[in-house]
Amino acid sequence: MNAEIIAVGSELLLGQIVNTNARFLSRQLADLGINVYYHTVVGDNPDRLKSAMEIAQKRADLIIFTGGLGPTKDDLTKDTIAGQLGKQLVLDEEAMKSIELYFEKTNRVMTENNRKQALVIEGSTVLKNDHGMAPGMFLVTGGNKYMLLPGPPSEMEPMFLKYGQNAIAGLSGNKAKIESRVLRFFGIGEAALESEIEDLIDKQSNPTIAPLAGDGEVTLRLTARDDSTGTAQALIDEVEAAIMARVGEHFYGYDETSLMIELTKLLKNRNMTLSAAESLTGGMFQQELTSISGASSLFNGGVVCYSNEAKIELVKVMPETIENHGAVSSECAAELAANIASVTNSDIGISFTGVAGPDSLEGHPAGTVFIGVHIKGLPLHVERLSLSGSRSAIRKRSVKFGCQIIINRLTGTRK
Amino acid sequence: MNAEIIAVGSELLLGQIVNTNARFLSRQLADLGINVYYHTVVGDNPDRLKSAMEIAQKRADLIIFTGGLGPTKDDLTKDTIAGQLGKQLVLDEEAMKSIELYFEKTNRVMTENNRKQALVIEGSTVLKNDHGMAPGMFLVTGGNKYMLLPGPPSEMEPMFLKYGQNAIAGLSGNKAKIESRVLRFFGIGEAALESEIEDLIDKQSNPTIAPLAGDGEVTLRLTARDDSTGTAQALIDEVEAAIMARVGEHFYGYDETSLMIELTKLLKNRNMTLSAAESLTGGMFQQELTSISGASSLFNGGVVCYSNEAKIELVKVMPETIENHGAVSSECAAELAANIASVTNSDIGISFTGVAGPDSLEGHPAGTVFIGVHIKGLPLHVERLSLSGSRSAIRKRSVKFGCQIIINRLTGTRK
Repeated sequence: MNAEIIAVGSELLLGQIVNTNARFLSRQLADLGINVYYHTVVGDNPDRLKSAMEIAQKRADLIIFTGGLGPTKDDLTKDTIAGQLGKQLVLDEEAMKSIELYFEKTNRVMTENNRKQALVIEGSTVLKNDHGMAPGMFLVTGGNKYMLLPGPPSEMEPMFLKYGQNAIAGLSGNKAKIESRVLRFFGIGEAALESEIEDLIDKQSNPTIAPLAGDGEVTLRLTARDDSTGTAQALIDEVEAAIMARVGEHFYGYDETSLMIELTKLLKNRNMTLSAAESLTGGMFQQELTSISGASSLFNGGVVCYSNEAKIELVKVMPETIENHGAVSSECAAELAANIASVTNSDIGISFTGVAGPDSLEGHPAGTVFIGVHIKGLPLHVERLSLSGSRSAIRKRSVKFGCQIIINRLTGTRK
Repeated sequence: MNAEIIAVGSELLLGQIVNTNARFLSRQLADLGINVYYHTVVGDNPDRLKSAMEIAQKRADLIIFTGGLGPTKDDLTKDTIAGQLGKQLVLDEEAMKSIELYFEKTNRVMTENNRKQALVIEGSTVLKNDHGMAPGMFLVTGGNKYMLLPGPPSEMEPMFLKYGQNAIAGLSGNKAKIESRVLRFFGIGEAALESEIEDLIDKQSNPTIAPLAGDGEVTLRLTARDDSTGTAQALIDEVEAAIMARVGEHFYGYDETSLMIELTKLLKNRNMTLSAAESLTGGMFQQELTSISGASSLFNGGVVCYSNEAKIELVKVMPETIENHGAVSSECAAELAANIASVTNSDIGISFTGVAGPDSLEGHPAGTVFIGVHIKGLPLHVERLSLSGSRSAIRKRSVKFGCQIIINRLTGTRK
């Protein structure tokens, strides 16, 4: 079974809102083993909606519409779809009752146009709206399946989870067992990673291997179905092992995680504390660290030492270090890292100094970055990076490198 | 002229990412007076991309593609479009050079598949990529206009703003004169703002008034066309004045700006410096401040004082203050603000202490926030807020309140 998601709403075409509904439904359908081949967005215009529907009827088994079920003039999804299918709209008594109840509960007078929300396409299964007024619908007719869902995510998502997915799953008693796993990599480009595993990608169809790059990271999404050669999980395990053998040194975690989350997990396991002295990154490392609930057990505090004076006053860097080597230097990064650990009495100190750009600094081009890492019991470590991209990209990438360096130093995989 | 936006990428159909590019481009096209009638999303599949393109060729004058310009096997947008148009791909020397330079600068070895990114459709205008490798293209042929843009928003958005929109605007000498202006508000909810100006929204058709809420802020987008009653700008001015008379005290800026940008502008004008002691916000205020290029002229540095020890050691808060009143207190916020200004020798000191959640702290529920503001020559000022929402929302909202409090104290609009 394949699906198309059609969002109806001029506010999407005007760019006032983002189509997060398509994302939500795509994930849910993937979990049900249904391939989504197209998303379409169309405005509150009956002719163009009809045309989009005609196209979808030819190329999709299941068509899910979101939006346009409300009481106002521009809510025309139901009328248009019913017309295209040659069906009538009929009043659903239960929906009508719950709309009346809603107005009663909120002490508001129901205007006549609200009755429109209780009209449903004849022959459809009504999907109850537990978080709003307009009900959803599910309908199988003429070789296609149709689902109509409300536009607001706060109504659509629970309706789909509670009623919609069961209606779909009920169609095919034999839901194909599909599993997926995301492998996350940092410190290797998308092209380099892909060229390392090109033959695996080419020869694989179960699982499929889908690379995705973003924010300086690359992920591989492995998606498999049970088949005669094994279960989905076993098939994924096998391909994962083959991938790890080639690019494992850049791997850092599975599914929804981040380098910072992996770092905090490791530090909690080892019962270690961390501090930071941030020049280049201006507080981004500490902000990200403290965005994780429970960071207080491993983080006392740290410093944003943007100016040279702040490096000297707040982190006790020797003025001669800056005079002789500059603030953008291995020497300064080393002192910052060692001193911030001692000032805050932490096991680990990390420092970031460099040039975020757009202008160069102390003769160094934008993207020059020094990261210092002091870990109790290990030699002081400084890395120099040359990063490219915007000011924001350089800062973000530096924070990720910082996390990775600490992780790798602690696990002994970085000399 | 009407347009369709086609996003290419299986990651969109799998629900891994949201199609924010369609939103960005829709807004930009609206400002250019171009109606967007459809968004389409299609996967990394040549047949389905070709089919989507054929449909768009029949219904849209301008087709903008995003994504699929990268170096890997599943980046097939260029090949597919060139094939459908009967055009060849040719090497663009300038793009090739900048790709080589990118690898040189980052000390990485260029793999062969990266050369693919320098191939462009023959006869197209190349749009330079200042933030990545893959160039964009613009092409007018066979009655349609085509634009190809990279998928990552960090590359696509600046490319469109710097090169793309000029290429489009250059087509129609007689661009309908449309202007829009965004008014930004903070400290008032969407419903409250909308009810204050409901009659204005209802009776207006030129300009239109479109409210939008997000990240704790509300914006009003005023969009007007020249007509017999006046120019677009004059029509907008008139409605803006009416809006300001009602909700002006919550207004903080126009178009693309932020409270932090407005704050740094004000401080630069007044030649004042600023520091921060952040507990609750964990560095977010300073991170956002230093994300603005040129922040170094008004910011030496500051402290993230997450634990009580850090408040005492790094910001010299008296231990008795924390013992007697707690860290989440007006007294602690006041000391942090005054001390951080003196420690860093800044004109202004701001502090954030409170409970980001999810758990309560010192008997205060999540969302309890104290913001201290010390401004040289003004009485020390502390505000207590009760915010709701997620950990992240509470931190972000606190930073915005902090900016607004300083701005209002400096301009004398907050007692």
